[in-house]
Amino acid sequence: MENGRPDKLKTNLLTRLNRIEGQVRGIKGMIEKDTYCDDVLNQITAVKAAMDSVSKLILESHIRGCLVKKIRNGEDEIVDELLATIKKLL
Amino acid sequence: MENGRPDKLKTNLLTRLNRIEGQVRGIKGMIEKDTYCDDVLNQITAVKAAMDSVSKLILESHIRGCLVKKIRNGEDEIVDELLATIKKLL
Amino acid sequence: MENGRPDKLKTNLLTRLNRIEGQVRGIKGMIEKDTYCDDVLNQITAVKAAMDSVSKLILESHIRGCLVKKIRNGEDEIVDELLATIKKLL
Amino acid sequence: MENGRPDKLKTNLLTRLNRIEGQVRGIKGMIEKDTYCDDVLNQITAVKAAMDSVSKLILESHIRGCLVKKIRNGEDEIVDELLATIKKLL
Repeated sequence: MENGRPDKLKTNLLTRLNRIEGQVRGIKGMIEKDTYCDDVLNQITAVKAAMDSVSKLILESHIRGCLVKKIRNGEDEIVDELLATIKKLL
Repeated sequence: MENGRPDKLKTNLLTRLNRIEGQVRGIKGMIEKDTYCDDVLNQITAVKAAMDSVSKLILESHIRGCLVKKIRNGEDEIVDELLATIKKLL
Repeated sequence: MENGRPDKLKTNLLTRLNRIEGQVRGIKGMIEKDTYCDDVLNQITAVKAAMDSVSKLILESHIRGCLVKKIRNGEDEIVDELLATIKKLL
Repeated sequence: MENGRPDKLKTNLLTRLNRIEGQVRGIKGMIEKDTYCDDVLNQITAVKAAMDSVSKLILESHIRGCLVKKIRNGEDEIVDELLATIKKLL
C-alpha cells in the first residue's frame, strides 16, 4: 500500500486484530484452567478464521488499490509479487 | 483433558501463545504504520502456522491421554467426539 | 484396516471415486475447450471437496475399527500412526 | 481466458490431469484390495496437492493474461471476479 490504507479499513482491521488479541489471551486462560481439549480447539479455529478475514481484507485492498494503479502505469512486476503472495496464502 | 495437561505441555503451550499474542500486536503496529501488504500477509501466515502447531499439540495430548484411557474403559463415545473434532480441524 | 472395510463403505467409497474420476475427465474437457478460468477453478474446488469427504470416511472407519480394537489389545503404536496421519491431513 | 490458454500451458495442464485421473483410478484399486488406511490417505493427499498445482497454474495464467489486459482496457469488473475467485480458493 503506497499511500496507506483508507482510514475506514484501518479502523476495521485494528478492531478485528484487537478482538483476535483478546481471543488469544482467552485461550491462554483456558490452558491455565485445564479447559477441555474440544473447547480450546474450537477457540483456536475461531482465531484462525478471524485471521483469514483480516488477510482477505488486506489482499482485497491491495488488489483494488495498488495493483490496478501499477498495472495501468505499466509496472507489471506487481503481478509477480501478487502471484507469490497468493501462492503463500493458498 | 480430565486431570489436566502435564505441566511441561502447559508451559510449552503458554510460551507459544504468548509469542502469538506478541505477533498479533506486531500486526496491529504494521497496520498503524501502513506497512506494505505483503509483509503484513507474511506475518498473518506465520500466526496461522503457530496456531496450527498449538492445535496439533493439544490434539496429540488429548489422543495420547484421554482417548486411550477412555477407550480402555469402554467409554467409546469419546470416539464420536474425536471424529467431530477432527472434522472441524480438517 | 486389517480385515477389510465393510462392504457398504467400500461401495460408498467406490461410487464417490468414480464420480471424482468423471469430474477430472470433465476438467480435461474444459481445458481442451478453453473454458473460462473461473468455471475450471470451481470444478477443481469441487473435486478437492469430494476428495476430502473420501478421506474423512476412510479415517472414520479406521478410527472406529482398527484403532479402538488395537488400543484395547494394548497395541498402542497405532496411536503414533494416527497422529502422524492426522498431521499429514491437517 | 478469452482467446484460449497458450498451447504449452494446455499440454502441461492436460498431462497433470491425466496423471491425476490415473491416481484416482489407483485409489479405487486400493479400496477394492483393502489397502491399509494410511497408504490410501497418503495417495489422497497427493491427489489434492496435484489439484492445487493445477489451480495455481490456471490462476497464474488468468492473472498474467486476462486480468492485466482488462485492467488496461478499464474493464475493472474483472477485479471483483478475481477477488471472488481468490476467496473461494482460500
